[in-house]
Amino acid sequence: MNDKNRYRNTESMITHGNPSFQAAKEAGLMDLSVRGTGRGTLALPDGREFINTCSCSYLGLDSHPEVLDGAIQILQREKTMNLAISRLRVRLSAMDELEAELSRLWRAKTVVTTTASAASAGLLPLIASGHLLPDGKRPVLVFDKAAHFSMNLIKPICADETEVLTSPHNDLDFLEDVCRKHARVAYVADGFYSMGGAAVVKELLALQDRYGLFLYFDDSHSLSLYGTAGEGFVRTLIGGDLGPRTLIIGSLGKGFGTAGGAVMLGPGHHTDLVGRFAGPLGWSQSLTVPAIGASLASARIHGTPELAERQQALRANIRYFDERIPTRTRGEDFPIKVIEVGPEAEAVERSRRMLERGFYTSAVFFPIVPKGRAGLRIMLRANLAQADLQRLCDALRDVAAPVA
Amino acid sequence: MNDKNRYRNTESMITHGNPSFQAAKEAGLMDLSVRGTGRGTLALPDGREFINTCSCSYLGLDSHPEVLDGAIQILQREKTMNLAISRLRVRLSAMDELEAELSRLWRAKTVVTTTASAASAGLLPLIASGHLLPDGKRPVLVFDKAAHFSMNLIKPICADETEVLTSPHNDLDFLEDVCRKHARVAYVADGFYSMGGAAVVKELLALQDRYGLFLYFDDSHSLSLYGTAGEGFVRTLIGGDLGPRTLIIGSLGKGFGTAGGAVMLGPGHHTDLVGRFAGPLGWSQSLTVPAIGASLASARIHGTPELAERQQALRANIRYFDERIPTRTRGEDFPIKVIEVGPEAEAVERSRRMLERGFYTSAVFFPIVPKGRAGLRIMLRANLAQADLQRLCDALRDVAAPVA
Repeated sequence: MNDKNRYRNTESMITHGNPSFQAAKEAGLMDLSVRGTGRGTLALPDGREFINTCSCSYLGLDSHPEVLDGAIQILQREKTMNLAISRLRVRLSAMDELEAELSRLWRAKTVVTTTASAASAGLLPLIASGHLLPDGKRPVLVFDKAAHFSMNLIKPICADETEVLTSPHNDLDFLEDVCRKHARVAYVADGFYSMGGAAVVKELLALQDRYGLFLYFDDSHSLSLYGTAGEGFVRTLIGGDLGPRTLIIGSLGKGFGTAGGAVMLGPGHHTDLVGRFAGPLGWSQSLTVPAIGASLASARIHGTPELAERQQALRANIRYFDERIPTRTRGEDFPIKVIEVGPEAEAVERSRRMLERGFYTSAVFFPIVPKGRAGLRIMLRANLAQADLQRLCDALRDVAAPVA
Repeated sequence: MNDKNRYRNTESMITHGNPSFQAAKEAGLMDLSVRGTGRGTLALPDGREFINTCSCSYLGLDSHPEVLDGAIQILQREKTMNLAISRLRVRLSAMDELEAELSRLWRAKTVVTTTASAASAGLLPLIASGHLLPDGKRPVLVFDKAAHFSMNLIKPICADETEVLTSPHNDLDFLEDVCRKHARVAYVADGFYSMGGAAVVKELLALQDRYGLFLYFDDSHSLSLYGTAGEGFVRTLIGGDLGPRTLIIGSLGKGFGTAGGAVMLGPGHHTDLVGRFAGPLGWSQSLTVPAIGASLASARIHGTPELAERQQALRANIRYFDERIPTRTRGEDFPIKVIEVGPEAEAVERSRRMLERGFYTSAVFFPIVPKGRAGLRIMLRANLAQADLQRLCDALRDVAAPVA
């Protein structure tokens, strides 16, 4: 079994991770069954209410009346949940309209997928095999150590096509060294990381200029939040065409407020190959009809001044939070905040106390973050009222103090 | 690169598969952009209409008024598309109701996932690592050669945890030989195969009795179609408890008529581990709110006599088709029919002529089926009117004749 567990180790993950999950469950922090109250809180079966401060719907678009209407109206018009055939063969014209609108807004050919993780499962193997690279040859594939689980999961599949390496987080020296040694290198990373922080995009683009480095970003957490059309952090930093050496994917189920994934393709990316050979992208699972309708409505909002208003409301909430609560990413203009507390049990206990105060914050621990670096994860939102945000920060200041 | 392409070969797949896709596109059979006409047909932008005879919605539940209402009503009540947080932490009580209802109907603890392929991506590695086996030890993992792409994709991930083999299709001798040589074996297969035919479930259960063989079935194409509660082909053949050595997954986006996947777990399957460590099942992507509402409505229908009526209507259509059109699976009581024509170009040409006659049939070719064994794939439905079915068979009898 010497060639096993090169890319994953389930036994280690479960042995070291499960006790914390179990502790979180015993503390009443897992498997919460809720209904919406219509006043910004979620209600538990026993009547307790809390504000979800771990929703990835950073702009509150998931509950926008036009988004909900978009879902309802398309159901009333098309009278189906799902065409139940591969989108490669037959798809609703509404899906083409959605992709055309996103392509226009984000200035890159945009393909909509069932989920962002399905996009990575389909695309990363085609990058590994060289088919999405300009010269069609296999690159050495480098995954950032902090890249999201949904990309790491796919590592062994890529490793069946090419050499796969893991780089320390944001380590440009490591990456440049690989670029010097190999003719073709592709790098896989998050745009904004799910535990805070961002890719060093400008420096990565400089390596692309110098060595032809291919870049694959999952920018799920910044889509809709950044850019005049919500094109996201990475796309905003790439001014012009996406080019043939950069590919960006993201989730439509976070800032965008609906569901599904989006793939932004550059001019050399062979849209046909992506549709036909990128695994899940061609199977007969596609975005449901209501999600297409909701997404069309969200895309329309992305073309109005309302987007900027919501982005600004989010930024104001981030600034307020940063003034009151110190975190590693203070001042970084990004809604994911992790308050590191160290021991796993501490994170669970503080999250439990936050819930008593009316706020759901995620206790994060291994394998979500490294061992011994557990914490509370908080996601700020545009639609978090000022009074609630103040109460959240008050509670964090009380609870973030070490437990006696 | 000698250790590469043990489990997949993208280059070969594209080299041999893409010309057929290209031909199908040039024949007007790919990327069809449609809207529903409200009278059972789909309309192309130029006004041509056709009947989709390749929909996996075998019972027509995707367009059931109560299913559509279920989606609309939950949106009006919960006023959100998506809670945008891992279901492991916080989920709508409607999701718990859905899982409770499916668990009751199907007599197995049922977990709902974003897609069936996400379920395989999450579960197969936990089977490979032994964590879902009764004794927690790694099995030798055998994939049926005809298992769906969504499972084959995950092979290299499993191979990073344990030894992975591929068996000839439904080859019991091969499998028994592996069982004799290894203490623990797990077998991965479709229940009903997407290109027709079924797993030899009874014989596999006999191997399970004899050797403790673990069985993993993706029964996507038979869910809702078989069983008094739509529990599917495999679940129907296992009379009592699912037991600790059988795991069934399936899609809710086919016969069930909505979206998402379902995992039926046996008593020893550690639901908590599945939620926490089965990759996509724990990430912050979950079934959208309208899909939960639609699924609750479909589950309710599954508990009424209407399910049997629709199943019978489907079977009547299958019998009529079988009387008129010979296929390899004639008489098999299964809605997927493949008319094998041999050369890829023949399949494309016949599918083109079928579309001229008003029916979309999928031209299937490598890598969907083996090289040189291309054909037309037809999926029968309960809601295919008798007159339309007659016209379909008339057209197939004309078109299925060799092209001059």
